[in-house]
Amino acid sequence: MKIDCLSLFPEIIEQSLGQSIVGKAQERGLLDLDHFQIRDFATDKHRSVDDVTYGGGAGMVFKPEPTVAAIRHVWRPQAILIHPSPAAPAFTQEAARELARESHLVFVASRYEGLDQRVIDGWIDVEYSLGDFVITGGELAVAVMIDAIVRMLPGAIGKSDSIEQDSYFNGLLDYPHYTRPTDFEGRLVPDVLQSGHHENIRKWRKKQSLFRTAAIRPDLLEQAELDAESLKMLAELDS
Amino acid sequence: MKIDCLSLFPEIIEQSLGQSIVGKAQERGLLDLDHFQIRDFATDKHRSVDDVTYGGGAGMVFKPEPTVAAIRHVWRPQAILIHPSPAAPAFTQEAARELARESHLVFVASRYEGLDQRVIDGWIDVEYSLGDFVITGGELAVAVMIDAIVRMLPGAIGKSDSIEQDSYFNGLLDYPHYTRPTDFEGRLVPDVLQSGHHENIRKWRKKQSLFRTAAIRPDLLEQAELDAESLKMLAELDS
Repeated sequence: MKIDCLSLFPEIIEQSLGQSIVGKAQERGLLDLDHFQIRDFATDKHRSVDDVTYGGGAGMVFKPEPTVAAIRHVWRPQAILIHPSPAAPAFTQEAARELARESHLVFVASRYEGLDQRVIDGWIDVEYSLGDFVITGGELAVAVMIDAIVRMLPGAIGKSDSIEQDSYFNGLLDYPHYTRPTDFEGRLVPDVLQSGHHENIRKWRKKQSLFRTAAIRPDLLEQAELDAESLKMLAELDS
Repeated sequence: MKIDCLSLFPEIIEQSLGQSIVGKAQERGLLDLDHFQIRDFATDKHRSVDDVTYGGGAGMVFKPEPTVAAIRHVWRPQAILIHPSPAAPAFTQEAARELARESHLVFVASRYEGLDQRVIDGWIDVEYSLGDFVITGGELAVAVMIDAIVRMLPGAIGKSDSIEQDSYFNGLLDYPHYTRPTDFEGRLVPDVLQSGHHENIRKWRKKQSLFRTAAIRPDLLEQAELDAESLKMLAELDS
């Protein structure tokens, strides 16, 4: 997979991803990641990349010329152009999985009031919001999305079952984890996990996962495809 | 405000935030940000920070001893301890706003299968998920949350109206933005924005914001407190 990142702060994206799964994917030849400074594509003498918003108001908007020149520099026919924007649907694991099947992704990270709408209309294939909060720039959003996508590339993660057990793969929240010591300052690991009884451990974890999801994210539970055992466990919770 | 970050990759958080609003807040004396390596608090000869999960299965869990030793090192009575976790409610602008009112935040970034549940039960005040997707480690989530929180500190952003106009302040998505040139490769800025007619521009933007929210995030529209003008505009959309 090839990923190109266009932004005003390429070093933020680069440094954020250096120690992550992304670095390993590059070493393994799974990923070709490049960073481009949009300012390098500005043609006026001040190398300006932003301008006032049409119609008045606070905040600056990315000028179309440098942004589109940067896009044209990296664009190939297979490219999918992605713009993180708070005014967009949420980025999800499903989006990460779909984007991981593409051969060439181009991320455009904006700041201030964002991209000129004509650039979005004319060049951007998809916009995603990281969540219902405001951050300074799109660079961190790009880093997070790239991390989530690259994890889904075959071979990026050593033990494939470590992915399979991740949250959101079965649509439920993860169960609680414990490690040694059994007694940490008077706090004990639950008996069932010390029992070595695999079937009981499996059931306990499944129940914890179901109950936690019911408590914190009932919306996920409604969307999940639950088997008969899960439905029975949830009925016990209600009674 | 004081923020302490405990993690296995302090440099990811530090470098992610270096060029952002956070750097400026530090220069202005609004923020005292420190980073701690959890591995420095491991006491065994291999300085190990993780161990196998109790009850079997793939993935490692953060050992309680080094994590809690790091927490105790930075803990003060006012501290609010935050752990980014996929098995938690979503981080939102409301959470950022509330946390910005605290005097001391401690972020604990985990990896692998996360923290031992006893550490969460005994020390963590609140857990937030960045979104419905999986990333390699909590470091990027911590960086995103800190950016969102620090933006809300009084004085962190130069023009306060630039915050006020941000998405999520009125509960709706932002309207489209445009800048010069008026004609970019045949794509034109909408006439109304060129008109100089402030009232028409205000109405156009409000309508765009409402219609976009209705199309992309109807859930936000249901929660928003809409004035009579907004309701009339939405009625036009339906008809």
